[in-house]
Order: sequence, then C-alpha cells, then structure tokens
Amino acid sequence: MKSGRLEAFSDGVLAIIITVMVLELEAPNETTLEAIIALLPIFISYLGSFIYVSIYWNHHHHIFQMIESVNYKILWANLHLLFWISLIPFTTSWIGENHIDTLPVALYGFVLIMIGISFRILKNCIVRHHGKKSRVGQLCRIKRKDMFFLSAYISGVMLTFFNTYGGVSCFIIVILFQIFELKQLHNTI
Amino acid sequence: MKSGRLEAFSDGVLAIIITVMVLELEAPNETTLEAIIALLPIFISYLGSFIYVSIYWNHHHHIFQMIESVNYKILWANLHLLFWISLIPFTTSWIGENHIDTLPVALYGFVLIMIGISFRILKNCIVRHHGKKSRVGQLCRIKRKDMFFLSAYISGVMLTFFNTYGGVSCFIIVILFQIFELKQLHNTI
Amino acid sequence: MKSGRLEAFSDGVLAIIITVMVLELEAPNETTLEAIIALLPIFISYLGSFIYVSIYWNHHHHIFQMIESVNYKILWANLHLLFWISLIPFTTSWIGENHIDTLPVALYGFVLIMIGISFRILKNCIVRHHGKKSRVGQLCRIKRKDMFFLSAYISGVMLTFFNTYGGVSCFIIVILFQIFELKQLHNTI
Amino acid sequence: MKSGRLEAFSDGVLAIIITVMVLELEAPNETTLEAIIALLPIFISYLGSFIYVSIYWNHHHHIFQMIESVNYKILWANLHLLFWISLIPFTTSWIGENHIDTLPVALYGFVLIMIGISFRILKNCIVRHHGKKSRVGQLCRIKRKDMFFLSAYISGVMLTFFNTYGGVSCFIIVILFQIFELKQLHNTI
Repeated sequence: MKSGRLEAFSDGVLAIIITVMVLELEAPNETTLEAIIALLPIFISYLGSFIYVSIYWNHHHHIFQMIESVNYKILWANLHLLFWISLIPFTTSWIGENHIDTLPVALYGFVLIMIGISFRILKNCIVRHHGKKSRVGQLCRIKRKDMFFLSAYISGVMLTFFNTYGGVSCFIIVILFQIFELKQLHNTI
Repeated sequence: MKSGRLEAFSDGVLAIIITVMVLELEAPNETTLEAIIALLPIFISYLGSFIYVSIYWNHHHHIFQMIESVNYKILWANLHLLFWISLIPFTTSWIGENHIDTLPVALYGFVLIMIGISFRILKNCIVRHHGKKSRVGQLCRIKRKDMFFLSAYISGVMLTFFNTYGGVSCFIIVILFQIFELKQLHNTI
Repeated sequence: MKSGRLEAFSDGVLAIIITVMVLELEAPNETTLEAIIALLPIFISYLGSFIYVSIYWNHHHHIFQMIESVNYKILWANLHLLFWISLIPFTTSWIGENHIDTLPVALYGFVLIMIGISFRILKNCIVRHHGKKSRVGQLCRIKRKDMFFLSAYISGVMLTFFNTYGGVSCFIIVILFQIFELKQLHNTI
Repeated sequence: MKSGRLEAFSDGVLAIIITVMVLELEAPNETTLEAIIALLPIFISYLGSFIYVSIYWNHHHHIFQMIESVNYKILWANLHLLFWISLIPFTTSWIGENHIDTLPVALYGFVLIMIGISFRILKNCIVRHHGKKSRVGQLCRIKRKDMFFLSAYISGVMLTFFNTYGGVSCFIIVILFQIFELKQLHNTI
C-alpha cells in the first residue's frame, strides 16, 4: 500500500489542528492595548502549540519521505498518533484561559507523553515493516535519547504538582532538544 | 476519470469531520479534577467517533488504492457517503452532552445504518464500473457479513428503546467486527 | 503552470465549506423528538447546500481533469469562484434559522447568481487559455442553457419578493437541471 | 527532500485560514435589510483578507512550482510564514467588529509587516538552497521594491495613529502593487 494517502490525510488533520487553535484568539470587544495584553497568555500558548505541532509535522514528513509503502499497522499507528495530537488544541486552550495552573499544565504534559509514546509506536511499526537494516529502520530504531525525552516529560508532569513553572520549563527544554534532534535527522538524510 | 481527486476531497472532508469533533471538548473555566471528569462522557464519545471515522477512512483507502478510474455514479455515491459521515459530529455531541440517553443513541445508530448502506451503494457502483471479475469486484461484492452488520445495527437501534446500554453494546460489537474485517481485507490484498 | 495545486487548494476550500455547514446543526440540550424536529429546517438547508456545493465540486472536477495547465487569470477566476461559494454557509444558516423568509432566500439566490457568473468567467478564462477548438474549449463555451440558468436564477430572486416558496421552487428546478447537465457532461467525456 | 508535501500542508493551512474568516459572518436573527447592512464592515474586512491571503497563496504557488526540492530551513521558514498568516483571521475580525479603529488597524498592519518579512526570509532560504544563478534564485533575490513595500507598510502602521483611514489607504495601495507584481512575476515565468 502506498504511503501517499496516509500523508495527505495526516497533512489535512495536522493543518486543521494547527489552525483551529487560532480560533481561541477571539477578537476583544474593546480596542484598547489592555484588551490585547489580556490575550497574551492565549497567544503564547498558541505559539507554543504551533511550534510543537510543527515539530511533529516536520518529523513525520522526514520519516515518510523515506518510505513508499505502508501496511495496516502503520495506518492505525498513525491514526493513534493523530488522535493524541488532536487533543493539543483542547489542552492549549485550557492552559491559555487559566494563565498556567497546575492541572492544565499536567494534562498538557500527559498529552505530550502520549504523543511521544504513539510516535514511538509508529516508528516501531515502520521499522518492523521495512526491516532494521533499511535506512529508515536505522533512523527510527529506539535510541537512548528517546528514553531521555520520555523520562524528562514524566518528570515534567510530576514537577508540575510542586512547581508549575518548573514543569513548564521542563517541557520547553525537551522541545528545544527535539528541534535540535530534527536538525540532526535532516543532516543524516 | 482518475480517482486522485475523489480521494483528496474525501481525505479533506474526513480530516475535518474527525477534527471538528474535538472542538466539542471545550476547556472548562475551572482547573479542578472534577471539571475534567465532567468532560469524560464527551471525551469518550469523541474517542468512539474518532475510531469509527478512522475505520471508514481506512476501509475507503483500502478500496480506492485498488482502483484508478472512477465514473459519475461513483463520485455521487462517495458524496452520499460523506454526507452521512458528516452527521457523526452532530450525533456524537448530542450523545456526549446528554450522557447516553435513548433518542441520541437511536439517532446515532440510524446514522451508522445510513453510513453502512451508503458505503454498500458506493461498493456496488465500483463493482459495476470495474466488473465482478476484477480484483476490486471480488472484494467489494455483497457478502453475508454485510447483511449481518446491517441487521445488527437495526437490532441495536430497536434495542435502544428498551435498554440504551444494550443498544450501545450492540454498536460496539459491530464496530469490533468491522475492525476485524478490515484486518482480513488487508491480508487479502 | 500545472493545475495540480489549484485543484488541491480548491478541494481543501470546498471540503471545509461543505463541512462547516454541519456545525450549524448544534446538538439540542433536550433529548426529545421535538428538539430534533425543531432542527429540521436547518437540516434541510444543510442538505440543500451540501447538494449544491457537491454539484460545483463535481463540475469543477470534470473540467479540470481535462486540462493540465493553467495561467494567472484562471488562478484568480478560480479564487473568485471560491469566494462566492464560501458565502453559502452564511446564507444557508440565515435561511435555516429563520424558516424560509423573503430576504434570506433572496440573498441565497443572489449568491447562487454570483456563483453562476463566476463559474462562467472561470470557463471563459479556460477557453481563452486552451483555445476554442480544444476539447475543453468546446465543452466550456457559452451555451444557450447558461443563459437559461442565469435568467431562471434572476427570476427566482425577483419571485422571492412576491412569494418566497415560489422563489425556492425556482432555485430547486435549476439545481435539478444542473444535476442533469452534469450527467450529460460526463457522458460527453 | 521533495516539495510536494510542503505545498500540500500549506494549501491545507491556507484553505482553512481563508474559510475560517467566513465563520465571523454570523447569520443575524432578524431578516431585515438593516441586519445585513450591519454586517457590511465584517463582510468588507472578510473580502479584503480573502484577497490578501489569495495573493500570498498565488505568490507561494508561483515560487514553489519552480522548485522541486526543499531543505530543513525552507520547511521552517514556510511554517514561520504560515504562523503569521494564521493571525489574519483574528486581526480581521477585530477590525470587522470595531468598524476601523486605530489599534486594530495598526495590529493588522503589524501582521502584514511580519508576513512580508517572513515571506522574504522564505525566499532567502530558497535562494540559498538553489543558488543565486538558478531561475528561482534570480526571481526571489531581494529587490528594491521589497524595501519599498516594507517601508510603505511601516509608514502605514505609523500613519494609523494619526489618521486611521490614511493607514488603511496605505495598506490598500501596497496590496494593489502586490497584485501588479504578481502579474509581472507570472509574465516572467
């Protein structure tokens, strides 16, 4: 089965997820500077989530451009990944409306963990389909840094219950690492 | 007529339908655990409908990857199918907001029946266009299990009026069968 | 310039327009039969607009599958067409919420006229680009029935101010003719 | 890396942005002419933004049809551009709801500046990837008119604080120039 339609469908879903979040930015009724400043937390959480979804789109694109065929399991693993990413707008708006509170941040972190795990599952399905010795197989196999990311996310969620900003910082650090990882991945290809 | 644009349009519509449903998950104003638990019925009905639309996208993908040309009737049969699938977000949110009540579940079941029938019509159009002896013709011809699914859905709707949870269970069983059928279809190809 | 991206962008916009309309169908808070019956006018106007947008997607698809190259003017004529089609959800919901009243129906008719005119402009641009003697040129040149459709739409809008249902009937008749025309177009190809 | 998926994703995001704006046009509860006239400012700002996003889609399409490969930096520069374009619906609705007031117009102008700058960055990345001597390199290199557009936008934003309509006129002039530029670009290709 060719991978073209999986890519098209994923692009569609990700394009909607990334754009839907901007709908949270509702135009204020007043035209004062204060009205815009009041929207800043929503704007920042939109920006953060835009970057986050972009990283995953980018990563997804890098992997799927290396393969041409997919199977049943890859289709479902991809839908599973899209499901967790589709929860980003909800958690983003929950954070945005409540100016960084414990439970919304923890839930956001939980969704980040699930996205990480489901992307790991998708990569495993791809490795199994194309073989460990293929180019995509070597790039997608489990690496030490995956474990590091996962434990960093879990620590972030736990840290949130003691210090919300500590948890947020933890997530930002992992995201910066992921951008760096993406750059390395690009150079490898 | 090539099938490429039919697939692209269907992907677009299905991507929107699957994503629109997450908009029902509105961020609560409070940041308590109770506020999240209150959203659980909406979350579960979103999850169920995500799985359901995924099954149809998957099935649609399996069939259309086997054919390259479509005709007038297939275009309309596909639009007919998309129409009924587009009602899923509405019925999903009606169930989600009312914690599993008789009429919403019955309507949901009715939409499931109509989706089943319109998919059957689409398959018939494909069989007529490509011939019964073609590969896609053999896979898409009417089978006993189609009749079983249809009668199970209809029984589910009727059961709903006596016992709502009985109806829901009935639908879940058919959905599980459909996932299994999809796996078989994949193995056949 | 290849026509692929024009088709992809149009598919995206049309897929969103057709799906956005279903968002008007908001789930009622009650689970009674009356609550669903109260939604019937919105449902019917959704159904009508779904059919209408489907006709244009279908027609658009038929024409663009015959050509491979587009120019600057075709791009803009296509965007112009999409602009008018994008007003369908607005006029649909205005009718749906007001149970067929004069002004909403007249506005709906006005949008239908503008869609017809902008589609005519798009066809003219295609004919000029590909030549009157090309296959697409012969199919897209102005025909008597285009004038008939236009005058029927204009009569429909005027009739609306005397008798709303008369105007609606007028539009329905043209739409039925357009479906028939589409079938003929398909047979010609 | 092929450019196909970047184009598909951008088409998806732009299609949603352009369509989301029409959702601001909420159907009034009354069916009077006054109710429609009251929507005129929102309609005009929708029309303006539709044209503006169309120009960028068109320009984007013109450039990407000349290249077939993209790299890591182009992907991110493109996402950066999409981010700023995604703010258009928000600023449009802020203007539309407040009938042309200073701050909304200035913010709109600021977003236009950022879109211009991010498009310039995207073009620079493309020039660096494909070389200054390639066809796309010659068309995308910095030109005097880019500086003119930028200074016109900045003057427009500053003018807004003295005379709102002066600022708006300034933006409209630049947009007309951009349409003219696009036509020239098309003729060059």
